[in-house]
Amino acid sequence: MTSNQHIRQLVTHLREGNVRALSRAISTVENRTAESAELLKALFPFSGKALLIGLTGAPGAGKSTLVDQVAHEYRKQGKTIGIVAVDPTSPFSGGAILGDRIRMQSHHADKGIYIRSMATRGSLGGLASTTADVATVLDASGRDLVIIETVGVGQDEVDIVRLADVTIVVLVPGMGDDVQTIKAGIMEIADIFVINKSDREGAERVEREIRAMQSLAVRHDDWVPPIVKTIASEGTGITELVAAIEKYREYLERSGHAQVRRIANWRGRIVEMLRDALFQRVLSYYLSEGEANRYAAEVAEHKRDPYSLVEKIVDELGKPE
Amino acid sequence: MTSNQHIRQLVTHLREGNVRALSRAISTVENRTAESAELLKALFPFSGKALLIGLTGAPGAGKSTLVDQVAHEYRKQGKTIGIVAVDPTSPFSGGAILGDRIRMQSHHADKGIYIRSMATRGSLGGLASTTADVATVLDASGRDLVIIETVGVGQDEVDIVRLADVTIVVLVPGMGDDVQTIKAGIMEIADIFVINKSDREGAERVEREIRAMQSLAVRHDDWVPPIVKTIASEGTGITELVAAIEKYREYLERSGHAQVRRIANWRGRIVEMLRDALFQRVLSYYLSEGEANRYAAEVAEHKRDPYSLVEKIVDELGKPE
Repeated sequence: MTSNQHIRQLVTHLREGNVRALSRAISTVENRTAESAELLKALFPFSGKALLIGLTGAPGAGKSTLVDQVAHEYRKQGKTIGIVAVDPTSPFSGGAILGDRIRMQSHHADKGIYIRSMATRGSLGGLASTTADVATVLDASGRDLVIIETVGVGQDEVDIVRLADVTIVVLVPGMGDDVQTIKAGIMEIADIFVINKSDREGAERVEREIRAMQSLAVRHDDWVPPIVKTIASEGTGITELVAAIEKYREYLERSGHAQVRRIANWRGRIVEMLRDALFQRVLSYYLSEGEANRYAAEVAEHKRDPYSLVEKIVDELGKPE
Repeated sequence: MTSNQHIRQLVTHLREGNVRALSRAISTVENRTAESAELLKALFPFSGKALLIGLTGAPGAGKSTLVDQVAHEYRKQGKTIGIVAVDPTSPFSGGAILGDRIRMQSHHADKGIYIRSMATRGSLGGLASTTADVATVLDASGRDLVIIETVGVGQDEVDIVRLADVTIVVLVPGMGDDVQTIKAGIMEIADIFVINKSDREGAERVEREIRAMQSLAVRHDDWVPPIVKTIASEGTGITELVAAIEKYREYLERSGHAQVRRIANWRGRIVEMLRDALFQRVLSYYLSEGEANRYAAEVAEHKRDPYSLVEKIVDELGKPE
């Protein structure tokens, strides 16, 4: 079977709702195998129908439980859900893998919820790109909602939640400033705030801080991000959260901002994809293994300055006609 | 005064130990102003003498206190220190800015310690590059040690500590798995482990976990990373930590790995710089503002698939002769 036939078959099975085909397609994309680009080209026409929800917050904010509850709530409405849990944390703690197994079991009987954990990739970056592509696969498989869950601590994570139609930021009371650390820039892009574990002391303080921050923030639309209080472990506030998501979805459609936002997201993604593709090209054509090693040695021995070197290589590229 | 004269003057003042010139040079590099590349070219010949120490760990691990104590310990030996604190956390918590002010005050009287905080930049990345360039400025200013301190949670942070000659990973007992989250890949590159707040319950457990992980890790040299127990707030274990740093420095020099490591670091940096430079070039010549917007709209409307689009743009670049 040729690669093309193989991809066509994978797409057909995936479109029929075959979960193993879905898993295989995601692995192909996640591992950036040779077939990855062709598969994504074949799937792209089927994507664009799902609502993409990005959910982020500090470690320990109860994101997984919250996402599971939201998924179950949508299941009651007959919707199908794909969840991508991006976990940049160390295998040292063991938490991520174990947590995933427990979650998998609880959804085991329900084919309407598909969960995929993604660890972060090597230092060449591209995590946000890969996550976006995995979301495209889930979207193309016909899921009504795709929820992307990530720890809101790094630039990668900001880039990931930027891909979503709806961005939810989860905060918790009483964790102390040191732990409440989430990346600058995430607060600004929240469409909905959740105060989880809201029965804890300090919930009012967190709410006041969000309000204070909102008075300074500049949005490109006239949506005022609501604050929803939840206790995810007890299921409290979940219907309110889903209602808030649906209200924002209606707002997006009504105001025309849905399309504005998707265009902005695609703009960022195209630029990012271009950067990755160029990088691959540089490594193939402009900087061989041997040259890179020789240059690095010369710079390390201070025989050459790296700033002039990079200018020289780029200048050799020439300008387009 | 021409830009060239201005740069020459700045370099002269910086080399004389003028702290304001140092601050101005760092700002020039950090903000990537037009003069940035020329300044770095002028400073590069003076760099390469400082020992670069990278220190990372989870939020709340006590990194700042530890770095301050290490700096003071080296001051007793007459060494001068530059500290770059990279802080990707939100201004929402207020912790970063406040903390920096307090630290600034405590070192106020001592010109031998210079601290610079860096917030993360926009989503185009390049934080690791910028941090490396700031370290080069501090190095060229004649500081004996440059300490780069960062929260070990994202890929950016792994890239940052990779730049160092010595990488220190700080852990704390009893924070729970959820909070002990540090990026996969950081544990593997540690040259020295610190268990800070080591009077807390669970210090032995953390030590056992490090040992268990070490038995699996593959190093490119025969150094066995020591585990140093500290209580930074009381100054306990700091002389031991400095001794461990010096022992590793001696090992690096003796074994020849210092140069091997610097070459590897420069290799990574050159590739990264080249990618950024090419990307700028693409934005200038190959993808105008207007085109990017048009493409994004076409993709968002599903009239075009982004994967084929990126291939097309890259192909237009042509191949070098």
